[in-house]
Amino acid sequence: MVPHLTTALSGPLYMLEKRVLQAMPDIEHWFRSKWQEIPAPFYASVDLRNAGFKIAPVDTNLFPGGFNNLNPEFLSLSVQAAQVAVEKICPEARRVLLIPENHTRNTYYLRNVVELCHILKAAGMEVRVGSLSPEVTEITKLETHDGLPLILEPLVRVNNRLQLKANVFEGVEYPAFDSCAILLNNDLSGGVPDLLQGLEQTLIPPLHAGWFIRRKSQHFAAYNKVVDEFSQLLNIDPWLLNPYFDTASGMDFHARVGEDVLAEKVEAMLLKIQAKYDEYGITQAPFAIVKADAGTYGMGIMSVKSAEEVRDLNRKARNKMSVIKEGMQVSEVMIQEGVYTFETINDAVAEPVVYMMDHFVVGGFYRVHTGRGIDENLNAPGMHFAPLAFEKPCTLPDCAGAPDAPPNRFYAYGVVARLALLAAGMELQDHGSLNA
Amino acid sequence: MVPHLTTALSGPLYMLEKRVLQAMPDIEHWFRSKWQEIPAPFYASVDLRNAGFKIAPVDTNLFPGGFNNLNPEFLSLSVQAAQVAVEKICPEARRVLLIPENHTRNTYYLRNVVELCHILKAAGMEVRVGSLSPEVTEITKLETHDGLPLILEPLVRVNNRLQLKANVFEGVEYPAFDSCAILLNNDLSGGVPDLLQGLEQTLIPPLHAGWFIRRKSQHFAAYNKVVDEFSQLLNIDPWLLNPYFDTASGMDFHARVGEDVLAEKVEAMLLKIQAKYDEYGITQAPFAIVKADAGTYGMGIMSVKSAEEVRDLNRKARNKMSVIKEGMQVSEVMIQEGVYTFETINDAVAEPVVYMMDHFVVGGFYRVHTGRGIDENLNAPGMHFAPLAFEKPCTLPDCAGAPDAPPNRFYAYGVVARLALLAAGMELQDHGSLNA
Repeated sequence: MVPHLTTALSGPLYMLEKRVLQAMPDIEHWFRSKWQEIPAPFYASVDLRNAGFKIAPVDTNLFPGGFNNLNPEFLSLSVQAAQVAVEKICPEARRVLLIPENHTRNTYYLRNVVELCHILKAAGMEVRVGSLSPEVTEITKLETHDGLPLILEPLVRVNNRLQLKANVFEGVEYPAFDSCAILLNNDLSGGVPDLLQGLEQTLIPPLHAGWFIRRKSQHFAAYNKVVDEFSQLLNIDPWLLNPYFDTASGMDFHARVGEDVLAEKVEAMLLKIQAKYDEYGITQAPFAIVKADAGTYGMGIMSVKSAEEVRDLNRKARNKMSVIKEGMQVSEVMIQEGVYTFETINDAVAEPVVYMMDHFVVGGFYRVHTGRGIDENLNAPGMHFAPLAFEKPCTLPDCAGAPDAPPNRFYAYGVVARLALLAAGMELQDHGSLNA
Repeated sequence: MVPHLTTALSGPLYMLEKRVLQAMPDIEHWFRSKWQEIPAPFYASVDLRNAGFKIAPVDTNLFPGGFNNLNPEFLSLSVQAAQVAVEKICPEARRVLLIPENHTRNTYYLRNVVELCHILKAAGMEVRVGSLSPEVTEITKLETHDGLPLILEPLVRVNNRLQLKANVFEGVEYPAFDSCAILLNNDLSGGVPDLLQGLEQTLIPPLHAGWFIRRKSQHFAAYNKVVDEFSQLLNIDPWLLNPYFDTASGMDFHARVGEDVLAEKVEAMLLKIQAKYDEYGITQAPFAIVKADAGTYGMGIMSVKSAEEVRDLNRKARNKMSVIKEGMQVSEVMIQEGVYTFETINDAVAEPVVYMMDHFVVGGFYRVHTGRGIDENLNAPGMHFAPLAFEKPCTLPDCAGAPDAPPNRFYAYGVVARLALLAAGMELQDHGSLNA
C-alpha cells in the first residue's frame, strides 16, 4: 500500500521527479564525490513533506528512534550498512554499548532499541544496553509493546571509561562489559551528563550532535549550501527542495518578550512563500512553522498562517512554546516555511520518514495521522501515528516507469533525505573543528 | 523451500555450526581486520559442498555468471554492495563498460548480464555492454530466456582506451561511450585478447584474475593459510572447512604422459582422506576430484574413487580431460579431496553457490541436479540444473535457533564463502605484486 498523492498541482513535482530519474548517474556520482569529503553520520532519519509541487526535509534526527517501523524484509540492508559504518568509525570494535533515551515507558521506543541491538548483533557486534536513567540502578528487564524483552543495565564509570558490571540475572550470566564504542540513541537535549564527559571511548555520534548544542537553523544553513549546489547540477529551482527559514533569538514566550520581532519575521516569511506560490500558480494559503531551534520530539512547535497568530498567543499556547524536552526553556526559535503534505492514505495525512545508516538509505516509513491536517506537524508527543513501512527499498528506481511510480517516488525521497544527511555531515564536521 | 541435509553423520557439522554461531562477533571482527589488509575482489561466487561432517569451498569464480539466480527480493543488497565496491575501486567512475563471455547463445547467461547491468545502473552507473566476440561487428540485440532484451555493442580501441561508437539502433540513440572503468565478466580462459592489452582504463577485476594465468592450486594454497588462521580462532580442526589438494604437472592425457604420477598422487590423497574418515567415524568411501588447474566452466573434471580409475582412462575420458574452455590443452591438474554433498531436495542433489560483491555476501542459490550423484561435480557443461534462490540473506543468523536452522546454515555458508573470498583477495594481491 502506497499513499496517494492528492494534489491539484503536481506538475512541478513530476518535472522534479523526472529530472531526478534522468540525472540518476550524475546524482550518484555527485553523492560519491561528496562522501569522499564529508563523513556521513553513523545513522540518521529525515522527516520529509511532499506537497506535490515540492519535496523538502523538515527535520533531521541524528538519534533516530523508529528502526522498528522499517520493513523487516529489508533488515539485511541495515545490517550491511551498519557493517560499513563500523568499519569506518571503529574497525577495531568488537563491542558496542548502546545508550538509549530515558523514556523507558514508551514501549514502542523500546522496540526501536531492540531492533537496533538486533541490527548491530547481526553486523557482528556484541551489544549491551546501558541506561543513563537514575531509575535504573540495577539490571532491569523491560518489555516492548509486542512482548520482546529488553535488558537495561546501569552504567558504571571507571576512570575515563563507561562499563557494565558483571551480573547474573534470571539465571543468565552477564560478564563485565568494556566496549570500544558507545552508540548514543539519546539526543542529549538536557546537556551532556557527567557520566559521558571526557570519555576515552569512541562516542557515536559525537557529543556535539546532541540537541544541547545543535541548532536546527545550523542544519538548514548547511542544507542551503547543499541544495544550491545540487540544484545547479539538476538545473532546477532550489526552492523545489528547500523550505525557507529564518531565526529569532532572545525570545521569552512567558514574558511575551520578542513577540513583535517574531511576528514581523513570520509576516516576511509568508510574503516570500506567497511570491513563490504565485510564480508556480499554487492557490493554497502559505503557512509557517515556528519551532524551538534546539527542539526535538515534536515539542515547542506551532503552525501559523498570519503574523497575528503569533501576537495573540494565549497562556496555554505560550506555555506550550516555552518548554521543550527535558524542561529546557526556549529562547531561540526557527521560522520555517510550512510545506503541505499532500500524501494521504484512507483520508489520513501521511508523512515519509527516511532512515539511513552511514550514507545508505536503508528504508523508511510513513507517519500516518488521522487526527491532523495537511498543514500540521505530524511528529508530536502523545499523538498516535500508524507507521506504514515503505514497501520497496529506495535504491531501485524503475527508469522505464512513470516519474511518480512508487519505486521512483521512493528513490526521490532517498535523494532528498541524503541531501539532508549531507548537510548533517557538514554540520558535524564544522562543529567538530570548532570543538577541537 | 530449503534442501534437507540427509546424512547419518551430522554431529561434527552441528558442532561446527554451533561454534560458528557462538563465535560470530569474533568471526566478524576477524574478517573486518582482514579486509583492512586485503582488498576484496569486486565480485565473486563460491561453490560449496556440505557433507554434513564438513563444509568446504570447491571452486571460487572471479567472473560470476549467475546473478540472475539470486533472490530478487534482496537485489537491493547487491546494489548497496556494488556502491561500496565502486567507491573503493573507482570513486570517480560514472560509466562502466561491461565485457561479457562470448557464449551469446546461452540465454541464461545473457540473463546474468542483464541482471549485472541492472545492479550497476541502480548503483548509479551508466552501463553499456561491449562484446569481444568476433561475431558482434555491429550493435546487436539478443534476448534472454525470459524475453528481456540485451544490447551488445562492438568494442572500439582508440589508443589505450576501449570505447563504443555513437550509434542509432531501432530508433534509440546510443551516444559514444568512454568509460572510466571496465567490468570483466569474461574469465579470459583463452588469454588476454589484444583489445584488452595495455589499457589505461581500470579493469575490474584485474587481468591477472583471468584463467589464462590463474591456477586453482594457488587459490587453495591461499585458502590453506586462511583456514589455518581461522580454525585457530575457532579452535577447530581445519579439515572441517578445507578439502585436501595436490597438483600434478607435465600431464598429456592424449599421449598418456604423467598417468602414473597422477595415479600415485590420487592414491596418497585417498589414504589421507580415509585416515580423516576413520578419525571421525565416517563410513562413506573417499573420493577425489581431478581437474584442470586452470579449468573453469565445469570442463576437464573427473571424480575418482581409486588410483586405477586414473590409469584405465578410455579414449573418450582422456579426450574429455585434455581440453578445457577455449580449446586450451590441459597439462597441469589439481587433485582435490572430494566432498560429498548431502543436501537434497526432492531426491535431487543440491549444491550451494554463494555470491559476493566487495566483501559482502549478497545472496546465493542451490544448484539442484536430478541426474547426478552425491559424489559428482554439479557444474558441468550441458548439464541442466534448477537454480533455487536462497530464501533468506546470509547475514541474519538466528542465535536462538538450532545450529542447523536455515538462517544459521546460510550464515555458515556465508562465512565459508568469505574465507574463500579472502583467499582470492590474497591470490590477486600476490599476483598483482608479481606483475607490477
